[in-house]
Amino acid sequence: MMRNVCITGIGSTVFGRHPTKTIQALAVEAAEAAIRRAGIERREIGALYLGNFIAGPLTGQEVLAGIVADRIGLSNVPCTKVEGACASGGIAFRHAVLAVQSGMCEAAIAVGVEKMTQVPRESATNALLCARDNDEDGDSGLSFPGLFSRAWKAYDARYGITREEVAAVSIKNKSNGLKNPLAQLGANLTLETIKQSPIIAAPVQLYDCCPVSDGAAAVVVTTRDRARSATDLSIDVVASVQTRGAPHLAGHPDLSTFEATVCAAQRAYTAAGLTPQDLDFVELHDCFSIAEIIDAEDLGIVPRGQGGKWAAEGRTAVGGDIAVNPSGGLLAKGHPVGATGVAQIYEAVLQLRGLHANQVREAAIGLTHNLGGVGVACTVNILRRPDAR
Amino acid sequence: MMRNVCITGIGSTVFGRHPTKTIQALAVEAAEAAIRRAGIERREIGALYLGNFIAGPLTGQEVLAGIVADRIGLSNVPCTKVEGACASGGIAFRHAVLAVQSGMCEAAIAVGVEKMTQVPRESATNALLCARDNDEDGDSGLSFPGLFSRAWKAYDARYGITREEVAAVSIKNKSNGLKNPLAQLGANLTLETIKQSPIIAAPVQLYDCCPVSDGAAAVVVTTRDRARSATDLSIDVVASVQTRGAPHLAGHPDLSTFEATVCAAQRAYTAAGLTPQDLDFVELHDCFSIAEIIDAEDLGIVPRGQGGKWAAEGRTAVGGDIAVNPSGGLLAKGHPVGATGVAQIYEAVLQLRGLHANQVREAAIGLTHNLGGVGVACTVNILRRPDAR
Repeated sequence: MMRNVCITGIGSTVFGRHPTKTIQALAVEAAEAAIRRAGIERREIGALYLGNFIAGPLTGQEVLAGIVADRIGLSNVPCTKVEGACASGGIAFRHAVLAVQSGMCEAAIAVGVEKMTQVPRESATNALLCARDNDEDGDSGLSFPGLFSRAWKAYDARYGITREEVAAVSIKNKSNGLKNPLAQLGANLTLETIKQSPIIAAPVQLYDCCPVSDGAAAVVVTTRDRARSATDLSIDVVASVQTRGAPHLAGHPDLSTFEATVCAAQRAYTAAGLTPQDLDFVELHDCFSIAEIIDAEDLGIVPRGQGGKWAAEGRTAVGGDIAVNPSGGLLAKGHPVGATGVAQIYEAVLQLRGLHANQVREAAIGLTHNLGGVGVACTVNILRRPDAR
Repeated sequence: MMRNVCITGIGSTVFGRHPTKTIQALAVEAAEAAIRRAGIERREIGALYLGNFIAGPLTGQEVLAGIVADRIGLSNVPCTKVEGACASGGIAFRHAVLAVQSGMCEAAIAVGVEKMTQVPRESATNALLCARDNDEDGDSGLSFPGLFSRAWKAYDARYGITREEVAAVSIKNKSNGLKNPLAQLGANLTLETIKQSPIIAAPVQLYDCCPVSDGAAAVVVTTRDRARSATDLSIDVVASVQTRGAPHLAGHPDLSTFEATVCAAQRAYTAAGLTPQDLDFVELHDCFSIAEIIDAEDLGIVPRGQGGKWAAEGRTAVGGDIAVNPSGGLLAKGHPVGATGVAQIYEAVLQLRGLHANQVREAAIGLTHNLGGVGVACTVNILRRPDAR
C-alpha cells in the first residue's frame, strides 16, 4: 500500500550564467532554499536524490549527491545521483516521491543541477551527445538540433505545419519568460526576428533552441499527514510516472511522436483518475519549439496535428484553453539539464499556490513532463492543490 | 510492510581488457546471462537500475540504463542510471531490491558496468578524481592512491602495521584470483615481489593497487514466492543498506576508519538479526590492500587494530576464521568501477549456491561491501542460503 505524498518546500537558483559559482554551490543554494521553506526539520529528511546528466564531462565532479547532502547538513542517509539524460531531474523527483510512498523514509529531497556555460557552446553541444545511443546513431553525425530538425520534418510530413505556427511557440514562451524572475532568456520576439535568425539545423533556427544554462532546483516531499502539519502551502503529488522509449532513431518509425511520453501520460492520468481536460496548465519539455507541439499532442492536451494551430491561435497561452509553459519553458527559462525536471515541479508548485509571477487563473491541477535523449526516458507528474474539486 | 526479496539470476563478463566490446555490449552480455538463468520471463521485469560511475568522461555515453533495457528487450519500464562513485554498483542493486520490496514491481534487474582500459592509465586515474570533492580537496593534489597512502599512514599511526602485514592482503587476494575464471590479475605473489614493485604513493606500491578494468555484472531479483517457483537456486537478500559518509578529507578526523561502512554494517546486522560472527565470508571493497584491513575492522569481522595480523596469519583466507574476498577482490578480480558492487553479489551468490571455483566450505551467509569516493557512499548487503539455520 503506497502512501500519499505532498510537496512542502521548493527552491531554485536563477537560471542563466553563474561563472563564479561551482556546481556544488548551485545545488546547495537550491537545496537550502527548499529546506528553509519546507516546514520540517533537516533530520526528518531520510533520502536525497540528485538529478544530473553531464557533470562528469563538463565539470569533472561526480558523487554530487553525497557532497550536497554533506554541505546541507543532512544526517547519514542514502544519497544517490540518478541519470536519464534530460529527464534526470524528473527521475530524481520520482525517486524522492517513491522513497516516501514506500515507507522507506518520512521525507526526502530531490535536487537537480547542471553547470554548462563554463565550456564553449560547441563543447556543451558535444557533451549533450552522451544522451545519444552512440553505437546506433553515432554514424548519423546528428546533434540534438539535427535530431529535432528530423522530428520537425517528420511532423510536417504527417500533419503539415508552417514556420509561423512553430514560431508561435517561441514567441509565447519567450514572452512568458519575461515575467519569470528566474528565466535566462525571456524576450519580446517577432516572427520576423525568428525568421531572420541563424539556421542551426534546417528548419531549426536559433530561436527554436533552448539556451545552454547553469542552474539548480530542489523540492522537499513528505507524507500527506506530515505535510499538512508542516505548512499551509503543501501540494499533493497525485501521479509520478517514469517510462522508457526507444534510445535511437531506428526505434522511432515516426519522430512526430514519442512513445515514452504517450505511455507516461496515460499511466499518470490513470493513477490520478484524471483526464487531460482536468489540467489547468502544463510545464513540458520544449527543448526545441517543435518539441512543445509534439509533446502537447503526446500528452493528450491538444488534438493530433493541431499543435501548431493551437499555438498560433493563443490557445496554449496563459488565459487560453490550457496554459503551456507559463514559466517560459526550457526555451526561455533555460535548460540546465539535470535541473529541469525538478525546476518544472518548482514552477508548478508556485502556480498551484497562486504565487506565480505569470499566474494561471485558479490553477488547481498541473502536469509536468520531462523527456530525455531521443525519447529514451520520460517522467510525467500530476500535482494538485489540496482544496481542488 | 516491505516484501522479502530473493536473487534468482546472475551474470557477469570476464573482468579485464575488452578492447573490441563497447560499454553497451559489456552491459548487455552480463544482463542477458542473468536473465537467461533467472527462471522468470523478461516481461516480468518491472525496473532496471544501472550502476555506472564515469562512462560520460571515459566513453562519451550516458543514458545507459535505457539503452541496455532496449537492447535486452525489456518492455517500457523505468530505467535509471545511479551513481555514487565506486559504490554505484551496490546502489544499483539496492534500488532493484527496493523496487521489489516496496511492491513497485514483481522483479527487477541491476546491471553494473564500466569500461576504462581504452584510455591511458593516467587519464583513468584522472577521471577517477570525479569521485573526490574537488571544491574541498582539489587543492590537495591527492589522487586515490595518495588518499589511501594517507589512510595507511593514519592506520599505522593509530595501531601500527608492517609492510609484511599489508602485503599479506595482496598475496591472499591475488592467490584467490588465480582460482576465479573471471579475474583479471590473479597471481602467485611473494613478499619480495611486492616490496620491489614501483612506489605509487608511499607506502602504497604497485601490488597494493587494484587494476584498471573493463567489465559488467548483472543480478535479477524478485519476490520470495516468485523466486522459489522460478529456480531451486534462489538466494535470500536479508539486508540491503546504503549510507553516506564525509565526502572530503576534512570530514575524516581519522582515516583509519570509514563511518559510512561502520554505519551501513550496523544497520545491516540489525535488519538481518545477525552478527558478524554469523558470516561465512565477505566480499569487501579492497581497492587498495590497506582498504581491506580498514574495511574488515569497520564491518566488525576483525577486531580493531588486528586486520594486519589476521591477514598475515591466514585468518581471512579461505579456510580461516572468515574468508575475505575469496573471489580475489578488487585487487585481483579487477575493478570496473560501476560493475564492482553488482559483481560482489554475483560472487556471493555462487558461494551460497556452493558453485564457486574458490568455494568457502558450507557457506550459508555472506556479506558484500561497496565503498565510494573518500567514503562518501557505501552499501552493505547480507545474503543467505534459503536452507541456512
